[in-house]
Amino acid sequence: MNDFRFYTPTRYIFGRDAQKHVGEMSASLLGNRVLLVFGRNSARKSGLLDQVEDSLRKHGVEFFEFGGIRPNPTDGPVRLGIGLCRDEGVTGILAVGGGSAIDTAKAIAAGALYDGDFWDFYSGKAVPDKALPIGVVLTIPAAGSEGSGNSVITREEDLRKVSIRTEHVLRPVFALVNPELTYTLPPYQTACGIVDMMAHIFERYFTPTAGVQVTDRISEGLLKAIIEEAPKVLSDPTAYDPRANIMWAGTLAHNGVCGCGKAEDWSSHGMEHELSALYDVAHGAGLAVIMPAYMTFMAEHKPERVAMMARNVFGINEKDEVQAARKGIEALKDFFRSIGMPVTYSELGLKEVDIPLMVRKLHETKGSPMGAYYPLTEKETTEIYNIPR
Amino acid sequence: MNDFRFYTPTRYIFGRDAQKHVGEMSASLLGNRVLLVFGRNSARKSGLLDQVEDSLRKHGVEFFEFGGIRPNPTDGPVRLGIGLCRDEGVTGILAVGGGSAIDTAKAIAAGALYDGDFWDFYSGKAVPDKALPIGVVLTIPAAGSEGSGNSVITREEDLRKVSIRTEHVLRPVFALVNPELTYTLPPYQTACGIVDMMAHIFERYFTPTAGVQVTDRISEGLLKAIIEEAPKVLSDPTAYDPRANIMWAGTLAHNGVCGCGKAEDWSSHGMEHELSALYDVAHGAGLAVIMPAYMTFMAEHKPERVAMMARNVFGINEKDEVQAARKGIEALKDFFRSIGMPVTYSELGLKEVDIPLMVRKLHETKGSPMGAYYPLTEKETTEIYNIPR
Repeated sequence: MNDFRFYTPTRYIFGRDAQKHVGEMSASLLGNRVLLVFGRNSARKSGLLDQVEDSLRKHGVEFFEFGGIRPNPTDGPVRLGIGLCRDEGVTGILAVGGGSAIDTAKAIAAGALYDGDFWDFYSGKAVPDKALPIGVVLTIPAAGSEGSGNSVITREEDLRKVSIRTEHVLRPVFALVNPELTYTLPPYQTACGIVDMMAHIFERYFTPTAGVQVTDRISEGLLKAIIEEAPKVLSDPTAYDPRANIMWAGTLAHNGVCGCGKAEDWSSHGMEHELSALYDVAHGAGLAVIMPAYMTFMAEHKPERVAMMARNVFGINEKDEVQAARKGIEALKDFFRSIGMPVTYSELGLKEVDIPLMVRKLHETKGSPMGAYYPLTEKETTEIYNIPR
Repeated sequence: MNDFRFYTPTRYIFGRDAQKHVGEMSASLLGNRVLLVFGRNSARKSGLLDQVEDSLRKHGVEFFEFGGIRPNPTDGPVRLGIGLCRDEGVTGILAVGGGSAIDTAKAIAAGALYDGDFWDFYSGKAVPDKALPIGVVLTIPAAGSEGSGNSVITREEDLRKVSIRTEHVLRPVFALVNPELTYTLPPYQTACGIVDMMAHIFERYFTPTAGVQVTDRISEGLLKAIIEEAPKVLSDPTAYDPRANIMWAGTLAHNGVCGCGKAEDWSSHGMEHELSALYDVAHGAGLAVIMPAYMTFMAEHKPERVAMMARNVFGINEKDEVQAARKGIEALKDFFRSIGMPVTYSELGLKEVDIPLMVRKLHETKGSPMGAYYPLTEKETTEIYNIPR
């Protein structure tokens, strides 16, 4: 086991009507001038935004609406938001939505207290050591950003999608999590979120670090719970308990508890980011294609952890490592298909993919070799990208 | 799933040499006048206390030694500590040790900022809403107090042992956790700690709340990891990774993640507290006797969760609920015996136990019926106490 630090000071209020605490929590933790970051239409249409704004007013919190954040959020709105924070003397940021709103809120929160350009954090030129406090009303379980210190932003000029990670500076100070708010999510988006949270667990599960049984067994338990609950939310979108399990799983998948003591991998996320930067595919759907391809490569080159996943998550009873790994991957692909997710490029709606371009951009960003579990150079990532054809 | 709040703002530094951060962490989080709470001999003899004190001095933290805390800590030292805090203008409390030192530190921390007698918190007359900040250098993995908001103190006058629980007021602000510090723990104490942390998981596992798959599967994963690692720490006390897994499991067993969304039970802890209040037995050893007895009763009256434990933790393949439950209990008892723990009163060294007295004291404290999973009146607790004969 590696040495680690773990600090997760997010206050979760989880359950029915959790969003009703937003005024009270904002007043005490974000200050009285709040930038309200949200997406395009759904929060307004559902009435959630009105409810949030009423609650803020009732607790004397002034707010500045900053809507229109799109999936795969970009640097443009972040700079606008930083300007607004400075002009208006904003004291904290409140994100209403999912990963896009939250990750934008985080970039604004750090950028507003930084003298240079906020992209310095994403290019690796600087590390954020302070940020405005961030609060969240979560509506989409997937990214896990409500409990993480991470943020992913895409630069518009070259579509470079970069993820940054802080131990705690960018962790929200509170997250209000009401599973009922996810009842209206379309099935495809629900399924994409499920794949994304599973990938957050797998990226940490594929580790070269030995002796991490506690983290491994927790990760497997979380995966089993997701696989158990996923069909229920898809067959009955307003079933409270399954929605609640999926939503809480999304937080635990990414708050760091599945990574304690481990070197983490993140190759599949890196490879998928290139896919969704070039083509119009949802991150979760892209992961459903890339993650099994990554495991298929590993089954032949370093099968141990694929076989362990097969046995401990899917209950596959097979002694041979490679055979166990292969059966586990088939079970995972069957599961993805059962929730309406693609596992090949054509199922993803792509006739052709420009693998040489993706490989070049990938290693420009991630270096070569990349990945902790098994080192991947251009040769290996090309091979993996060729698998889901 | 029930609504819940979850807020765990403890900064963990986990790994080799973690205790070396004590001066730096104390200076920034406890202030410059610290009450140093520790046990009897071991921390002094091992040199740990000298190392801690050197580090405090180096960072300009003045400290007041407050040693001699015994297992099953009592109210007497707490009052002395509170007086010392007030006289010396103490700004924070640093516990070096296990649950006894930490729980004493917590009681002092809350009592020092309270006008009345600190026992008001334990008698239920008052709820602590503030406390001096608490830091921990952990040496014994068992109680999980380093990450919990809980504290257990015994009143000397009537040996009433009372547990209190806060959402976050009594959670340590930091915990320095070095598995190497546990190398010298005697095997019996190591095994007692293992039983205690398993019981912390089971007390939350036995719930009447439906639809808590995420919390259930995480709990089972944690139990499996403990069962996997326990024989390794006993056969090789200086094996780093197994010690590290057991130590981290002890924290996660009790920081609340295994209870999210559930009504919790805690009947076995209540029943064991009466046993160790009356007789000179270690808490963990007492739990190894009581917990399987509790489950044996449940196998006949409400077997579902005993059977689920049997299947998901011990891999028992048996369709019948009662049969599965019985086999699970046998597997659990076999495991306890394999690590040198008793599962009957005589194995615990007790020829006779005063069951009527324990039952009376138990229900005086806990009311009747008690327990969330299955309501226990005097009749049922008498039956359970009679099982491990």
